[in-house]
Amino acid sequence: MAETNKEEVASAFVNHYYHLFDNDRSSLSSIYNPTSLLSFEGQKIYGVENISNKLKQLPFDQCHHLISTVDSQPSSMAGGCGGILVFVSGSLQLHGEDHPLRFSQMFHLIPGLQGSFFVQNEMFRLNYG
Amino acid sequence: MAETNKEEVASAFVNHYYHLFDNDRSSLSSIYNPTSLLSFEGQKIYGVENISNKLKQLPFDQCHHLISTVDSQPSSMAGGCGGILVFVSGSLQLHGEDHPLRFSQMFHLIPGLQGSFFVQNEMFRLNYG
Repeated sequence: MAETNKEEVASAFVNHYYHLFDNDRSSLSSIYNPTSLLSFEGQKIYGVENISNKLKQLPFDQCHHLISTVDSQPSSMAGGCGGILVFVSGSLQLHGEDHPLRFSQMFHLIPGLQGSFFVQNEMFRLNYG
Repeated sequence: MAETNKEEVASAFVNHYYHLFDNDRSSLSSIYNPTSLLSFEGQKIYGVENISNKLKQLPFDQCHHLISTVDSQPSSMAGGCGGILVFVSGSLQLHGEDHPLRFSQMFHLIPGLQGSFFVQNEMFRLNYG
């Protein structure tokens, strides 16, 4: 896959992920698999089921992500796993809160069957300061 | 390599990287190789030589990184490239400036010869609020 195509995949993934997160969070389970690993504010969560439960149990119902920057790179050269690294910064507006929270987040997308990608690695941090 | 060992590698790498960046920036060339890719504030820079030149030409001489959080994960399961993803947030104090700048940064470390790791992927963003 050419690098331009990988950038398009990264951009489409970012739109898809935050749309689901803000509108239908339970559907996010479709992007993980049994080997996926999420680090959420320092807590490590393994596998699609545990990650889905974590996302469902976050202490807010309605939120809106506003994306500031998206960077992407192929995660390895020829012969590697053919993955895509995606690096996002933005702000997160929680329903009923006055001020949005700054966040940064990264994803490692790995090609699965039928041309789709799944999230192998994800790390999320709020940026205080 | 066990996951605990990878976390130790990530921690040692972060200390090494920011120590060199703040004290001897030209030595950072030792951590890249010809396939390395840096995204710096959205600009993509390929290969050890171009990356070294970019770092040398940054418009500040003295700076100090203060690290807030470090997360790390293996970048693939068994059979993959054996890499380590490192995700850092912190602040950057430039000499002569009143206020530090918030930043987030990620690295993909790949095992090289003799047990050392090099930086295959790096992405850096300032986090404006």
